[in-house]
Amino acid sequence: MFSINAIASTISQISNIPHPFLATVASENAPIILSGVLLTLIVIYLASKLGSEVAKRLDLPPVLGELVAGVIVGVTALRLVIFPEGEFTASDSLIMSVLQYLNQLNPESVNRIFETQSEVVSVLSELGVIILLFEIGLESDVRQLKEVGIQAFVVAFIGVIAPFAGGTIGLMYFFHVATIPAIFAGAALTATSIGITSKVLAEIGQLKSKEGQIIVGAAVIDDVLGIIVLAVVASLAKTGEVDITNVFILLVSAIAFLFGSILLGGIFNKAFVGLVSKLKTRGNIVIPAFIFAYIMAFIGNAIHLEGILGAFAAGLVLDETDARNELDDLIKPVADLLVPIFFVTVGAKADLSVLNPMISENRSGLLIAAFLLVVAIVGKVITGWVVFGVPDVNRLAIGIGMVPRGEVGLVFAGIGTASGAINKPLEVAIIIMVILTTFLAPPFLRIAFGKNQEAEVPISG
Amino acid sequence: MFSINAIASTISQISNIPHPFLATVASENAPIILSGVLLTLIVIYLASKLGSEVAKRLDLPPVLGELVAGVIVGVTALRLVIFPEGEFTASDSLIMSVLQYLNQLNPESVNRIFETQSEVVSVLSELGVIILLFEIGLESDVRQLKEVGIQAFVVAFIGVIAPFAGGTIGLMYFFHVATIPAIFAGAALTATSIGITSKVLAEIGQLKSKEGQIIVGAAVIDDVLGIIVLAVVASLAKTGEVDITNVFILLVSAIAFLFGSILLGGIFNKAFVGLVSKLKTRGNIVIPAFIFAYIMAFIGNAIHLEGILGAFAAGLVLDETDARNELDDLIKPVADLLVPIFFVTVGAKADLSVLNPMISENRSGLLIAAFLLVVAIVGKVITGWVVFGVPDVNRLAIGIGMVPRGEVGLVFAGIGTASGAINKPLEVAIIIMVILTTFLAPPFLRIAFGKNQEAEVPISG
Repeated sequence: MFSINAIASTISQISNIPHPFLATVASENAPIILSGVLLTLIVIYLASKLGSEVAKRLDLPPVLGELVAGVIVGVTALRLVIFPEGEFTASDSLIMSVLQYLNQLNPESVNRIFETQSEVVSVLSELGVIILLFEIGLESDVRQLKEVGIQAFVVAFIGVIAPFAGGTIGLMYFFHVATIPAIFAGAALTATSIGITSKVLAEIGQLKSKEGQIIVGAAVIDDVLGIIVLAVVASLAKTGEVDITNVFILLVSAIAFLFGSILLGGIFNKAFVGLVSKLKTRGNIVIPAFIFAYIMAFIGNAIHLEGILGAFAAGLVLDETDARNELDDLIKPVADLLVPIFFVTVGAKADLSVLNPMISENRSGLLIAAFLLVVAIVGKVITGWVVFGVPDVNRLAIGIGMVPRGEVGLVFAGIGTASGAINKPLEVAIIIMVILTTFLAPPFLRIAFGKNQEAEVPISG
Repeated sequence: MFSINAIASTISQISNIPHPFLATVASENAPIILSGVLLTLIVIYLASKLGSEVAKRLDLPPVLGELVAGVIVGVTALRLVIFPEGEFTASDSLIMSVLQYLNQLNPESVNRIFETQSEVVSVLSELGVIILLFEIGLESDVRQLKEVGIQAFVVAFIGVIAPFAGGTIGLMYFFHVATIPAIFAGAALTATSIGITSKVLAEIGQLKSKEGQIIVGAAVIDDVLGIIVLAVVASLAKTGEVDITNVFILLVSAIAFLFGSILLGGIFNKAFVGLVSKLKTRGNIVIPAFIFAYIMAFIGNAIHLEGILGAFAAGLVLDETDARNELDDLIKPVADLLVPIFFVTVGAKADLSVLNPMISENRSGLLIAAFLLVVAIVGKVITGWVVFGVPDVNRLAIGIGMVPRGEVGLVFAGIGTASGAINKPLEVAIIIMVILTTFLAPPFLRIAFGKNQEAEVPISG
């Protein structure tokens, strides 16, 4: 079949029919956007495979390799995969320059194409982390999660309180930072990255261990707590007061969502299995499963929680079904294709130039960064020792599992700077803390679990 | 992990921090775009499953059900899945209205979100047809394709010449249409839709039959010939002359691309198998395969052919490898998730209101449409009888396999109208011809092959 867009491009190329004509039948840039997406995906896949394979051979977690490979192709180094969110335009991107050359585009169209293709890659990356959490939910065991629920809650709670208090007080006391910026930076220390932690756990075959389930449970609760902290700090910074109503609504909807989906799960389960057994065309299992995951992700997003929380809950629910083993196999190749887009993109967006001590703004940030890094690590590692009632549990592994921070730290940094609440050195310090916890945690998590526990299946099918 | 975008949305919601702040850390609309994409995918998946299951039970090809379901959710009826390519804005879309209500957006942001999410869905749909053709390439047999190559070429050639000549001459003689518009309409009759035909062939288990391979081979060649016809007609309409150089370049690059990729295939094959056996991390087969498919699709796009031709060639090459069976299994769930997006989108974009005889513009088009439809069907069905040297071949099936027209007809219609070359009734007639050939061919193809040949495996895994 002809693609309407490729045709429009061909015609535009051959005949120079003015754009308005073609715009009536198709966005004339669509084939170039597709080319841009294809090139970006080729770069991301090459980077992810090179990175994960090198990491594997160095006995490091493959996901760390993907993150580092992302850094190399991203804003820090090669700038093949960059996003207009920073100060970048199409002319900073080698991929866009290639497309511009091939299609003889004017700068304005190139910038529009750059923005749209970046948006497409961002959505693919978000779908990647949604599918990752769906897969993690499928691989998690609801009964075991319920068993360790109280431990997970304590770990999450202490893991939010300790770094928040330590960071805020330490900054005020040692660095004479004012209250509001200190609270901002403290809040940036709170949230654990479920994605990175659970991926490493899956890679080393520890997702279903008691420690693994405590970490995943705690990371999920942490995510919810983090959103609430964010709501509190954001309203504090703006009005000096906390909007209790909003915080309350968030809290209630989060609890209702997580518990509601698990309770409704039992009912839905039977309906799902019944439905799947009646379907006779291709995709009879995978399409209903994705409809469910996407609906849950949409609800998570719509109530201002997280899409990934919804996908995780969907995975937990479907984990209980008879179709589960088959679904596991079907989801793997889809995850293999979408999840690396997420990790490479995270790496690509991390600007490591903040680590350069030759830039004076960075220098004053580096000392604060060292302090924040210590608080970020210690504040999470101690959570392993608050776990009670579970004999022979690997406390160090649990603590380290909570260390990697997500992009939320970067959001705090960005908003803090933009609103004038924090200055550049503090922003740089937060960014360094996020990057280092994210990159340091995977290898140490593996060491904490002991290398002999290796269990990844190399063939993904 | 926190998604930077969901956070930005939360903050914007809670704190009313102005957009420029958030724009520095993230496109503030990104979580809403993600929600829009999720909702659209949910609708597309529901439609595709409902459509294909109903079709299956009515003993019709599932893909026809997907197309019809697309019509129902698309521009013709429910308008859940619409694209800004027509005269539509966000306010025509129910999904956008839901998002606008949930997020209290102003009309300008809604329109921007509508455009971006439509772009994302369009790219997903293009990736869907790329993966479909990759899968068809994998399932095709190079040796058999070579064996039937000359037959396929003859079928394609006659299948372009006959409807082109019949349509052009008939319009001039019976309907007193002027030369240029008659040539335009004639050209719109030429191209076969590989996607729809090959999907039906796969569904009825006829892809590897001699007839199936002749149809697929002819449809591929037809695609190339169609692009050349398009180049000729477009330059003819513009300058009254044919740009020989461009046509020649297209022809040479098409031939070089198809033959080159098959010749290089042998060498690449060994490298691919060697590489895959050395990889030790997840996605060791599927990622290299997709890198290859995407590179080929990009090249196809870049030389102003088609991305899908590249993907088909990539599938043909990898078909020869030892990893093939495993790759087949891995690609199925990915195809199951992406291919329906393509077919539902095709249906959603088809505006069936042109069939309404109450609109006077349509009335004058309906008679011409009836004529074009006859030429479109007869001109392709006769190609079955030009096949020579293949005893006991199902000639009717080959002819019917060539009948469905792709969107190229719609492009011709749109460009013809925009450039003033054709009038509204002729445009309507072309659109009706494309829609009816697309929707009529699948059931008749199945009948031509005989229903007893049914071979679809209901479980896609």
